[in-house]
Amino acid sequence: MKTKLHIIKIGGNLIDDANQLNTFLSNFSKLKGLKILVHGGGKKATELSRKLGIEPVLMEGRRITSEKDLEIATMVYAGLINKNITAQLQAMNCNAIGLSGADANSIESSKRASYPIDFGYVGDIVTVNTQLLEILLYNDILPVFCAITHDGKGQLLNTNADTIAADLASALSNNYEVKLHYCFEKQGVLLNIKQEDSVIPFINSVKYAELKALGIIDKGMLPKLENCFRALKNNVSKVIIGNAASITRENQPYTTLEL
Amino acid sequence: MKTKLHIIKIGGNLIDDANQLNTFLSNFSKLKGLKILVHGGGKKATELSRKLGIEPVLMEGRRITSEKDLEIATMVYAGLINKNITAQLQAMNCNAIGLSGADANSIESSKRASYPIDFGYVGDIVTVNTQLLEILLYNDILPVFCAITHDGKGQLLNTNADTIAADLASALSNNYEVKLHYCFEKQGVLLNIKQEDSVIPFINSVKYAELKALGIIDKGMLPKLENCFRALKNNVSKVIIGNAASITRENQPYTTLEL
Repeated sequence: MKTKLHIIKIGGNLIDDANQLNTFLSNFSKLKGLKILVHGGGKKATELSRKLGIEPVLMEGRRITSEKDLEIATMVYAGLINKNITAQLQAMNCNAIGLSGADANSIESSKRASYPIDFGYVGDIVTVNTQLLEILLYNDILPVFCAITHDGKGQLLNTNADTIAADLASALSNNYEVKLHYCFEKQGVLLNIKQEDSVIPFINSVKYAELKALGIIDKGMLPKLENCFRALKNNVSKVIIGNAASITRENQPYTTLEL
Repeated sequence: MKTKLHIIKIGGNLIDDANQLNTFLSNFSKLKGLKILVHGGGKKATELSRKLGIEPVLMEGRRITSEKDLEIATMVYAGLINKNITAQLQAMNCNAIGLSGADANSIESSKRASYPIDFGYVGDIVTVNTQLLEILLYNDILPVFCAITHDGKGQLLNTNADTIAADLASALSNNYEVKLHYCFEKQGVLLNIKQEDSVIPFINSVKYAELKALGIIDKGMLPKLENCFRALKNNVSKVIIGNAASITRENQPYTTLEL
């Protein structure tokens, strides 16, 4: 039987609120067994950009990662947020280690093709190397990943945190029974976006196709769910979408996804 | 017989110059056997502070680390510099991993007492935990440390990089034959600060006392040499002070220190 492993991704809204983050980290530290945390960015990077007078560059409504943006992302995600989360978890007796994809070549990506839109320093994941991660987990050292990867040629790249979580989960499913958990501000995937308690408890591939066809799953949710189903196809045993409390409390509504 | 381990510290001047840094990292990557890199800060942190309009706070001529300064140090040292060095080493087939003292609780420090001078968020090292480092080295994964530590209670702290190198060397001397190497802009400890070629090839405790008494060792050099002799007393086998080229080229002048 494979060892169980939780991979939990937290988004920006949770990181921006010190109290919410603290509560989440406390819950995370109490979660029994092996676990990996993946965190997104939050408002800090935008705040720092503004203070430095760097205007966001948009192309067809989507943000481009310029050289300066990448510097800021590296400072804020891999430095400020990652090391503060690590230090907080250490204070909770959770032996965390903060990582980017460059560290021990854990996540190698390639710069997204510049055609039709040049998104700048954005990396799409090519390989997840599990060597270091398995060594760390075996020694009860718990990885905390930020959303920075590298191309193996010396270039750091900005990478979507949801995708990092799904790809880590997929790669580690060979040797672990992985439960992938996406935490965000809502209680799960909602049937009606304006109604907080309209959580859909269960979505499989058939239901997903229905929800997409009906337009119930909106643009922001679509890539998250694509990541979830990709992970499930790659043998991740369970995928959950819920709020921060859902990682420890069982009497909490959330969405479970299955193939 | 113990396994040999190189611990090399590079200072700010080397980091500020992209070409010099690249040459150093290329030499470092070619150095055979186990190795750990410790890097200082460089001008980037000061530049970022200035851009953000944060004025350095001085007390009796010495810089204080305010909360904002610590944020900047964490972003620049643990984020920007540490991850870029790691990515560059990866490109040179050197399996580097970037770390702060908070990661796997490697270096625990305590905030310096606020009396007689409150230096702010500055940490003096209390313990070096070698567990993770020994696991990494055993697996040929090479640690790259920035000068940020933590107090075990959730607080990150700014810590002198020379001291980090000496304390890592001391702690790892129990299980490795450690050669500690300080790289800076000069070729070694100079007899005459104005004469680049006046390198003192060899300094032991007796000679060190003489040089101090004669006022030949100046203020900037004094703490570096104190770190060197502390490391030697803690069974570090060899300590060298030289320029970046001295780590690989043997026909290079440098200063060797012995008890």
